[in-house]
Amino acid sequence: MAPRAAVSERETAAMRRAIELAARGLGHTRPNPVVGCVILGPDGEVAGEGWHRRAGGPHAEVHALAEAGEAARGGTAVVTLEPCNHTGRTGPCARALLAAGITRVVYAVPDPTADARGGAATLAAAGAEVSGGLLRAEAEAVNAAWLTAVRLGRPLVHWKYAATLDGRTAAADGTSRWITSAASRADVHRLRAESDAVLVGSGTLRADDPHLAVRGVPGAAQPLRVALDTEAAVVKPGARILDGAAPTLIAVADDLPAGRTATPGAEVVRLPRADGGRGLSLPALLAELHRREIRSVLLEGGPVLAGAFAAAGLIDRVTGYLAPALLGAGPQALGDAGITTVSRALRLAVTGLTRTGPDLRITAVPAPAAPEES
Amino acid sequence: MAPRAAVSERETAAMRRAIELAARGLGHTRPNPVVGCVILGPDGEVAGEGWHRRAGGPHAEVHALAEAGEAARGGTAVVTLEPCNHTGRTGPCARALLAAGITRVVYAVPDPTADARGGAATLAAAGAEVSGGLLRAEAEAVNAAWLTAVRLGRPLVHWKYAATLDGRTAAADGTSRWITSAASRADVHRLRAESDAVLVGSGTLRADDPHLAVRGVPGAAQPLRVALDTEAAVVKPGARILDGAAPTLIAVADDLPAGRTATPGAEVVRLPRADGGRGLSLPALLAELHRREIRSVLLEGGPVLAGAFAAAGLIDRVTGYLAPALLGAGPQALGDAGITTVSRALRLAVTGLTRTGPDLRITAVPAPAAPEES
Repeated sequence: MAPRAAVSERETAAMRRAIELAARGLGHTRPNPVVGCVILGPDGEVAGEGWHRRAGGPHAEVHALAEAGEAARGGTAVVTLEPCNHTGRTGPCARALLAAGITRVVYAVPDPTADARGGAATLAAAGAEVSGGLLRAEAEAVNAAWLTAVRLGRPLVHWKYAATLDGRTAAADGTSRWITSAASRADVHRLRAESDAVLVGSGTLRADDPHLAVRGVPGAAQPLRVALDTEAAVVKPGARILDGAAPTLIAVADDLPAGRTATPGAEVVRLPRADGGRGLSLPALLAELHRREIRSVLLEGGPVLAGAFAAAGLIDRVTGYLAPALLGAGPQALGDAGITTVSRALRLAVTGLTRTGPDLRITAVPAPAAPEES
Repeated sequence: MAPRAAVSERETAAMRRAIELAARGLGHTRPNPVVGCVILGPDGEVAGEGWHRRAGGPHAEVHALAEAGEAARGGTAVVTLEPCNHTGRTGPCARALLAAGITRVVYAVPDPTADARGGAATLAAAGAEVSGGLLRAEAEAVNAAWLTAVRLGRPLVHWKYAATLDGRTAAADGTSRWITSAASRADVHRLRAESDAVLVGSGTLRADDPHLAVRGVPGAAQPLRVALDTEAAVVKPGARILDGAAPTLIAVADDLPAGRTATPGAEVVRLPRADGGRGLSLPALLAELHRREIRSVLLEGGPVLAGAFAAAGLIDRVTGYLAPALLGAGPQALGDAGITTVSRALRLAVTGLTRTGPDLRITAVPAPAAPEES
């Protein structure tokens, strides 16, 4: 690979745009990454744009080259992921870029997979200027699900909760409709649409009979609805997740009699129970979902399931919707996570803070280091 | 009073500045309001600024006129509160403005007190142009404590809490140092400095042995430290609130034997118990503080006391410091407030959202109306 060349402001702007384009693929590309590409002509103007729209379809570079046509010749390709070097369901992008006359390639994230990597070296060997690492953190964030799957062999787990300012997800009598605003609830449908699967446990199934499908997001792909029903005791005929609006997977304990687990309207998978704990083995669950090419899971479960994921160190991203309201009683967003003292708190770094209607939306990721202290 | 005249952009900018100036008096002026004043010369340029610095000292207008000198003649006074019409500890400001040659007065909030009001009419009768109501909401916000006292005959109650994103104020073992950052804790000292009193209950006294004085705020006036120790059982010799760093008031039940309540280092007040509830009567407490000319109380108590204030409808303002951390167990910020179902939630309107170090700081006030709903 050539040493990193100077990157122009136009290329940086094009990379920001490419990251936006990549995000359009979220929820549609599994098991592939999301990728965005902007082609700049020899004059530095945008000549073409593209993104990877669905697995099996053309890669982002191919869409962008098609839009650019002859204007690509002598131009620059700005792409969020190192162009692939292998012939998968489509041809190698490195070759396609060279064939179109691209003479410079700027990418954000090196391809970490054994099959696809080497695109940068192929391009450089063919005489193209190649520069990697531009806006890498931002580009990794949009591809966090796919990168988690590559690095850890499991889906990214994104915990979503909605609570009052005092951390209650329902009132003392169990009522929770509606703590958060219509705007927040619509935003949750966007999160579902960007996820490959949506997950709840038996507590939420019992309390809310949730539907979990995406509504109100044009063009959305429906996520796999995953219900943990360890004892095969909660999901009954007529449950809303059995309505066919989206595929449904029910996970039950593998020591149950087989006759109890058949459920029309859903596939049933049998998983081992958690070691010494309640419910199912979460690593086994995530391994099963990985095997099914699920790259991201939106965890919408209640406090018990969220606590189990937190205790296992299996929460990769948090989105909290906080309603400006107080209840003073009622269930908590997060249940027992095995944390008994403040020095063991699960520390997060806030990555975003915005308003959704009257509510606050906070996004965060686990923070590796302890916070500053005096 | 003359009809409201057109207000210039310079006057609006001057009012914003006057509100900032007024805020400098917070914590220093009780039982008076905070007031800021900007004098614009006949050319529209700022000629003088002032604010009410302490009770018994000159009013804001007098400071500003002194700074403006002859430049006030033919000029405009922009003041956050209707200039007073009475001779209290200082002379009436309406007369002082006229004597200095001011020909136009723009104010934000009409004076609601029987003694002082009428300044606008006096000014208009003397031939000055008078315009009221400019930036009234902002000016009322900075004077909320004094206005609450005037309107309701009790101090404003400002509830402050610090919690994790899942609403925990301590871990399961009771440890809470430190959930929030040094920046948030410094900000709490600012809130204390702006308050006339700081209030905790016996749960917090027992768990934290709090100090409650202001540290690290230059020029701060120390608030009255108020400890609710209903049974006179918690505050013992050596308690940090008895150290003399600020005045201390301990409230105990009025049915205790007198010998049990004497406490060196603090004044003790005997109050009736709450009707049918735990602890002391909160209306009686607030009436006692009002009698002592306390206009604002920072409620730093734990979940039980905060819940009692919420249940009584006695929370006027909320500041929450949310640390980006999860605990999954431990005490809640707000305890039982008598709210059993979601439709009875205490709804708030967010008035501010900012970062204090890694934490979020949310300020809110009770919302009169139900939120939008679909």
